[in-house]
Amino acid sequence: MVRRIAAELVGTMLLVYFAVGVATLSFGFGVAGRSLSAGVVATALAFGLVLLVLVYAIGPISGCHINPAVTLGVLLARRMTPVDAAGYWIAQFAGGILGALLLWATFSGSPLYDRSVTGLGADGWGDASLIHVNAGGAFLAEVVLTALFVFIVLAMTSSVAIPSVAGVAIGLALTTVHLIGIPITGTSVNPARSLGPAIVAGGTALDQVWLFIVAPLVGAVVGAALHALVGPPEKETPLPPVEETREA
Amino acid sequence: MVRRIAAELVGTMLLVYFAVGVATLSFGFGVAGRSLSAGVVATALAFGLVLLVLVYAIGPISGCHINPAVTLGVLLARRMTPVDAAGYWIAQFAGGILGALLLWATFSGSPLYDRSVTGLGADGWGDASLIHVNAGGAFLAEVVLTALFVFIVLAMTSSVAIPSVAGVAIGLALTTVHLIGIPITGTSVNPARSLGPAIVAGGTALDQVWLFIVAPLVGAVVGAALHALVGPPEKETPLPPVEETREA
Amino acid sequence: MVRRIAAELVGTMLLVYFAVGVATLSFGFGVAGRSLSAGVVATALAFGLVLLVLVYAIGPISGCHINPAVTLGVLLARRMTPVDAAGYWIAQFAGGILGALLLWATFSGSPLYDRSVTGLGADGWGDASLIHVNAGGAFLAEVVLTALFVFIVLAMTSSVAIPSVAGVAIGLALTTVHLIGIPITGTSVNPARSLGPAIVAGGTALDQVWLFIVAPLVGAVVGAALHALVGPPEKETPLPPVEETREA
Amino acid sequence: MVRRIAAELVGTMLLVYFAVGVATLSFGFGVAGRSLSAGVVATALAFGLVLLVLVYAIGPISGCHINPAVTLGVLLARRMTPVDAAGYWIAQFAGGILGALLLWATFSGSPLYDRSVTGLGADGWGDASLIHVNAGGAFLAEVVLTALFVFIVLAMTSSVAIPSVAGVAIGLALTTVHLIGIPITGTSVNPARSLGPAIVAGGTALDQVWLFIVAPLVGAVVGAALHALVGPPEKETPLPPVEETREA
Repeated sequence: MVRRIAAELVGTMLLVYFAVGVATLSFGFGVAGRSLSAGVVATALAFGLVLLVLVYAIGPISGCHINPAVTLGVLLARRMTPVDAAGYWIAQFAGGILGALLLWATFSGSPLYDRSVTGLGADGWGDASLIHVNAGGAFLAEVVLTALFVFIVLAMTSSVAIPSVAGVAIGLALTTVHLIGIPITGTSVNPARSLGPAIVAGGTALDQVWLFIVAPLVGAVVGAALHALVGPPEKETPLPPVEETREA
Repeated sequence: MVRRIAAELVGTMLLVYFAVGVATLSFGFGVAGRSLSAGVVATALAFGLVLLVLVYAIGPISGCHINPAVTLGVLLARRMTPVDAAGYWIAQFAGGILGALLLWATFSGSPLYDRSVTGLGADGWGDASLIHVNAGGAFLAEVVLTALFVFIVLAMTSSVAIPSVAGVAIGLALTTVHLIGIPITGTSVNPARSLGPAIVAGGTALDQVWLFIVAPLVGAVVGAALHALVGPPEKETPLPPVEETREA
Repeated sequence: MVRRIAAELVGTMLLVYFAVGVATLSFGFGVAGRSLSAGVVATALAFGLVLLVLVYAIGPISGCHINPAVTLGVLLARRMTPVDAAGYWIAQFAGGILGALLLWATFSGSPLYDRSVTGLGADGWGDASLIHVNAGGAFLAEVVLTALFVFIVLAMTSSVAIPSVAGVAIGLALTTVHLIGIPITGTSVNPARSLGPAIVAGGTALDQVWLFIVAPLVGAVVGAALHALVGPPEKETPLPPVEETREA
Repeated sequence: MVRRIAAELVGTMLLVYFAVGVATLSFGFGVAGRSLSAGVVATALAFGLVLLVLVYAIGPISGCHINPAVTLGVLLARRMTPVDAAGYWIAQFAGGILGALLLWATFSGSPLYDRSVTGLGADGWGDASLIHVNAGGAFLAEVVLTALFVFIVLAMTSSVAIPSVAGVAIGLALTTVHLIGIPITGTSVNPARSLGPAIVAGGTALDQVWLFIVAPLVGAVVGAALHALVGPPEKETPLPPVEETREA
């Protein structure tokens, strides 16, 4: 179990460092320039590809959730115990905060970095959204985006899925989600990805972070329901008892 | 059968929500800026990647057509019954309309959204085309693009194809089709993807939508003919009787 | 054999239509705008992804060379007979010309299309190169780029390669080649891809097309030599006699 | 052993030629224009995709390290002997220099190429960094980026990994690393990738190259430690004795 918790912590830390780092460079530092789409593509690829490679690298250890909403979906699909889920959640939030701090340390080496202006790739609505979406639209978008993402994760880890492509499908699902979500809210779909950067950035990011914790969890419920409704028929092997799992 | 129909409806809804959403953000909201190519890449990736992940997630349920032209191609290749095809078509058009409505609800939260100006990623020709192609050029393009797409789908789902890469090939075929098609017509190759947004957007989009229903269906016939001509030799197992299929 | 020849013809036609089409839209029509890199990415993805999907779709029929330089490399690696290679070459050049004509027909529907200004994605040097490379630099680049590409194709179709990823590796090799080659020469590495558009475009494109036939063939020789030097040890099954092959 | 050394030399040469070539075109020649993100995506894809295809092509020969930091990580994981590692290192640095010379020869054909202005895609900090990061920030970034990359390589080549996706995961890990690293340092994570271009470019690039040799090696140590901590449990078959390996 310790190795699994460590994997979730390190994985979430790496996800935040790399993908939130690209978001900050594209939009905070303005590398995207006048064609924001290029920055959207760069950021969406960063989120999706870092998850894709981590699914293959640490999936065999912990399942590579590195996202509290995914852990909630897996819990609702009765594939893990509540106790394990709680351990995953703590590791994920801790990893997200560590990733944000490491990213802040890196950017602090740049004279162009000003935390209050450049930010740290935090999610937001209103003036913090590229299309100035209101809180209702942001909430709806986060629910739909997380629902798709959790639906894909549950389908790709079911017993009828092809294991060799799980990382490709799950990673590219996250890319898809970011292609639409970045101009709307910046895209959370992952409370741990939102909390860490919001704590470092402070201000509006921290004021609005509640929505990016609540809405993805609601979306995970919808995604788990979608999976029950139209996902592959469940032939999953039951979870091994906790004791056995701890030895894995 | 109910699960298959539900899968087609949900799949088409998600395809329209995500991919048409990125199209609207890139070109309607102008996130693409002066370098339209970046918006083309973002939108082409959105269409292809959402299909790629859905092929893996709901392919085991319904085959993941989520496109009336694909269903026509599969029907012409004698791999499904006309009754099943009719059920798929109804679910696909319904899903496309639901996806467009959900997208409209999301964008309505933005003060920058004006349905008559921003539109909803609808397809078109003349002034509604980036290169102002006329109806004849639009029709020709939609036929060729759909022919390639349906040809690839039929090849990748034949008995000699490698199942693990079917989603990659089919999804990236749709990306290819959009890379060329977006500046020409916006790219339909999928009547359900065109009808939903056209109903919500109204105006020119609705006036021109007939072409994006007819031309993809013509293209599906050409694609099925290409498959018969140069596709892998057919060794497909015959379709199970309808009764058996319904229980799947 | 007829089905294999037909597959090469249709495959080359589709490659030219789709990928040269994106090149024309990005650079001829100017969709790339001021950030040429976005157009480079769009075009490089179009070439690579259309090849990726065609490798899976028609690879089981003809091997999906759809490129005279690849056919030369395969011939030098003693995996096909000269007679078969000649048939492939004729089909590839004919397919390239048909693809260019079909693309011309599509673009003729646009009032913005002027063949002498917009061109048809032809390759070139001097003023026809984004970096105004001279003929020597263009020749060197085409040799190196084709050498990598043919090396990858030979490695991925050897007996030690993993069949399920052949299309991914070969397609993305072509994307890689275009990411560097587009600003230099437009990127041929495929005489059939260059001849068709040059015939339709005429002028400088046609005057310079000899280099984009000769240099890729030289590159194929270098690629086959690299394969013999550092490629996977050959354990390939010997080619079946020509009679058997013709029945395949 | 000769074939393995030749493979490492040719592989590193091709990596530098293609990927550093795209970096030079995007940022030296200014093809990226005002939207640097598009150039970042193009360059990140070039590095990742050329590695992806080389992993499949020469992975069966030498493991396709083509990076002294990866070789250090593999050595620390006790999967190769120090003697073999030394041979790999020499081949990698020689290959990097040859690749840079070949790229210089290609660009010399362009009247727009001026070595002191256009450079050759070298890494750097201060004025040589897009965000003007200082040496400390550059060092930290290179350590973190290389750690992720080496961690992924070790995980994907362990006994529990799925061989068919190793190239995809390793290549896309390098793309991820470049998406964040290009605006910070240009991205080394590979001393051989940095030394060759620095020798050709001279000036500041050569003065700063020490950091891009030292920091990636430190990062490789961190990556190997991460692998020991949270990577898949080691069930690797022990290395064959050196004599056997030499005959492979």
